[in-house]
Amino acid sequence: MDKNLAKEKFLQEFPDLVDELEQLVRSYGMPEDAIDWFKKSLNYNTPGGKLNRGISVVDTYLILKGLNHYDEIPPLEFKKISLLGWCIELLQAYFLVADDMMDKSITRRGQPCWYKVENVGDIAINDSFMLEGAIYMLLKNHFKKDSYYSDLLDLFHEITFKTELGQLLDLITAPEDHVDLSKFSLQKHSFIVIYKTAYYSFFLPVALAMIVCGLNNEKDMKQAHDLLIPLGEYFQIQDDYLDCFGKPEDIGKIGTDIQDNKCSWVVNTALKICNNEQRSILDKNYGIKSNENEKIVKDLFNELKIDQIYLNYEQDFVTDLKLKIDKIDESRGFKKQVITSFLNKIYKRQK
Amino acid sequence: MDKNLAKEKFLQEFPDLVDELEQLVRSYGMPEDAIDWFKKSLNYNTPGGKLNRGISVVDTYLILKGLNHYDEIPPLEFKKISLLGWCIELLQAYFLVADDMMDKSITRRGQPCWYKVENVGDIAINDSFMLEGAIYMLLKNHFKKDSYYSDLLDLFHEITFKTELGQLLDLITAPEDHVDLSKFSLQKHSFIVIYKTAYYSFFLPVALAMIVCGLNNEKDMKQAHDLLIPLGEYFQIQDDYLDCFGKPEDIGKIGTDIQDNKCSWVVNTALKICNNEQRSILDKNYGIKSNENEKIVKDLFNELKIDQIYLNYEQDFVTDLKLKIDKIDESRGFKKQVITSFLNKIYKRQK
Ligand SMILES: [Mg+2]
Ligand SMILES: [Mg+2]
Ligand SMILES: [Mg+2]
Ligand SMILES: [Mg+2]
Ligand SMILES: [Mg+2]
Ligand SMILES: [Mg+2]
Repeated sequence: MDKNLAKEKFLQEFPDLVDELEQLVRSYGMPEDAIDWFKKSLNYNTPGGKLNRGISVVDTYLILKGLNHYDEIPPLEFKKISLLGWCIELLQAYFLVADDMMDKSITRRGQPCWYKVENVGDIAINDSFMLEGAIYMLLKNHFKKDSYYSDLLDLFHEITFKTELGQLLDLITAPEDHVDLSKFSLQKHSFIVIYKTAYYSFFLPVALAMIVCGLNNEKDMKQAHDLLIPLGEYFQIQDDYLDCFGKPEDIGKIGTDIQDNKCSWVVNTALKICNNEQRSILDKNYGIKSNENEKIVKDLFNELKIDQIYLNYEQDFVTDLKLKIDKIDESRGFKKQVITSFLNKIYKRQK
Repeated sequence: MDKNLAKEKFLQEFPDLVDELEQLVRSYGMPEDAIDWFKKSLNYNTPGGKLNRGISVVDTYLILKGLNHYDEIPPLEFKKISLLGWCIELLQAYFLVADDMMDKSITRRGQPCWYKVENVGDIAINDSFMLEGAIYMLLKNHFKKDSYYSDLLDLFHEITFKTELGQLLDLITAPEDHVDLSKFSLQKHSFIVIYKTAYYSFFLPVALAMIVCGLNNEKDMKQAHDLLIPLGEYFQIQDDYLDCFGKPEDIGKIGTDIQDNKCSWVVNTALKICNNEQRSILDKNYGIKSNENEKIVKDLFNELKIDQIYLNYEQDFVTDLKLKIDKIDESRGFKKQVITSFLNKIYKRQK
C-alpha cells in the first residue's frame, strides 16, 4: 500500500481521539482554559513526527491478516488498530517532551520543544504525564471488553518501564555537561539502545498487532522479540553511524553526537580498539562544543576505520538476520514478512 | 490498633519491595550504577512521609474484614494489601518529585527535594517516571492472577489521570511568578483540590481495599466516592485555613500560601465577598514574596472574618456528612466505620 496514503489514513484518526479525550475531561467539569491547554499539548506533541511506530501497528496487522490495503480492514477494526498505533505515538510524545527538557534541547520536529513554548516551561513535566495518562483512558474506552485487554495494559506498562530504564542509563552514562569516557562501553551502549529505543519502536508495534490478532502465545511473542530487538539495535547503530559518517544532504541534518557527548556506537567502537595515545585524544576532544575538537575526533574515527567496521558489522548482522528469518515457524500464524518488511525499510538507508 | 505500631509494620514491607524491583531490573542485565541510582531514588522519595495514604489501605481492609489488628491478617494477605498501600506511596512520590520541580521548591520532608540532590537535577523527571512505572511492575507480580487485576489497573490509571488534571489546573491558575486573581474562583478551587488531592488521598486507598475485599460493586463504590471526595475537599480546605490561621507552633511550619500565590480556599472566599476597594488591596498584595504585603493580606482576611466563615463551613459540612454516614447502606458489606475513621482523623485537627 502507498506509504503516503497510509500515513494520511492514519493521521485522519487523530482528531477523533483528541475529541474523545476532550469529552472525557469535559465530563469531569474541567474548566475551559485547562481543556484548551490539554488539547494544545496533545496536538503539538503527538502528530508531526514520521509516525513510523504508529503506522507499523496497522501494517503488521495487515500482514498478519493477509490483507493488502487499509480499506480491506472493517472500519471499526481500523479505528481500534490505529488507536493502538496512536497510543505508541502518545507514549513517544511522553518520552520526547521529557527527553527534550533533560537534554536541554531547543527544537524538535522543526518547531520549538514544548517546554520552550511561551508560558509552558516546567508545566511540560505534567503535560508529559498527561500524554501518558491519555493512553490508558483511550485503551479503557476501546478495549475494556476485549479478552486481551489486560495483555495490552501489561505490554504498555512493561515497555514503558523498560524505556525509562534505558533512558536512565543513557542519562547517567552520558550527561551532556560532564565527559567521562571510562563510563562508556559497547555493552552499555547495547543496553541503552535496546531499552531506550528498540522495545517501544520495534517490538511494541508488532506485539500490539499480534495481541489483537490473537497471536500472542509465548512462542510467537518470543520469535518476534528475538528478531525485532536486534533489528532495533541495528537501526540505532545505523543512526549513530549516519550521524558521524552520513552526508548532511542525505540525512537532512548535521550530526551532533560527538559534541553532545553521546554514548554512540561509533565512539564505543573506537574506545574498544584504540591505543593509549588515541584514547587520550578522545578523552581530550570528545563531548566538547567546538568544531575544532570535533574535527580531531572525526579524523581519529577515520584513522581507526570505524566506517569499515560498521559496514562489516552491517553485512554480518543482515546475513545472520536473514538466516533467522528463514527459520521462523509460521505454523501458528506469525509471518516472516512482518520482520522482512521492517528490515526492508531500514537496510542501507541513507537517512 | 496503635498508630505507631501500624506505621512500623507497614514500613517493614518497603525493603522487600525495593529488593523485588532490584531483582527485576537486574534480570534485565541493567548495569550496576543504574541499579544503584534507581534504588536510591526509591528509598529517597517513597518512605519518609506520614504514610497516611498507604496505611489507610490496610486500615480500611481491617474494617471491611471486621478485624482489629494487623496480626489478624494472614501474612501473605498482609503482604498484598500493604503492597497496594505502597503503590499509593509510589504514586505520591511520582507526583511530588515532579511537583517540587514545577514549584521550584527547595526542601521536602526535611531534606532537599530530589532534583536538588547533587548530580540529579533534571534526571529527576525520568526518576519520577520510574517511580510510577514501578507501581505496575509490582501490581503485575502480585495480582496478575487475581480476578480483580484489571480493576486495580483501571483504578490506578483513572486516579493518576485525574490527579494530573488537577495539577494542570493548579499550575495554570496559580503560577508562582504571575499573579492574576481574576483566574481564581471557589469553583476552580474545588476542581483543583478534588482532582489533585481528594481522589488519590481519600478515595483511592478505600477503593483499593474494597476491590481486594470484593466489594467493588457499583453501588458501594458510589457510596464510598460520594462521601470520600467531599471529605478530601474538606481536608484541603482545612489545610488552606490552617496555613493562614493556624499557629506555627501547632501546624509545625510557617504558612506560605499568600506569598506563594496559592489558589487557596481562603483567598477564593475573600474574593467572593470583598468589595472593590478590598479587591484592589488583594490584587496589589497577594502572591508577593514580602512579609509586608503578606501582612496587609492577612489583615484583610481578618477584617473579612474568613476564619469565622471557615468555622461555619466546617460545622455545616460535618453535620451534613454525619447525616450521610448514618444513611450508608451496609447491606452488601460496606461499613460506615470506613468513613467515620477518616473523619475522626481529621475533624478539628490543628496540624
Ligand atoms: Mg534528546
Ligand atoms: Mg536524551
Ligand atoms: Mg542519533
Ligand atoms: Mg508544591
Ligand atoms: Mg504544585
Ligand atoms: Mg497547604
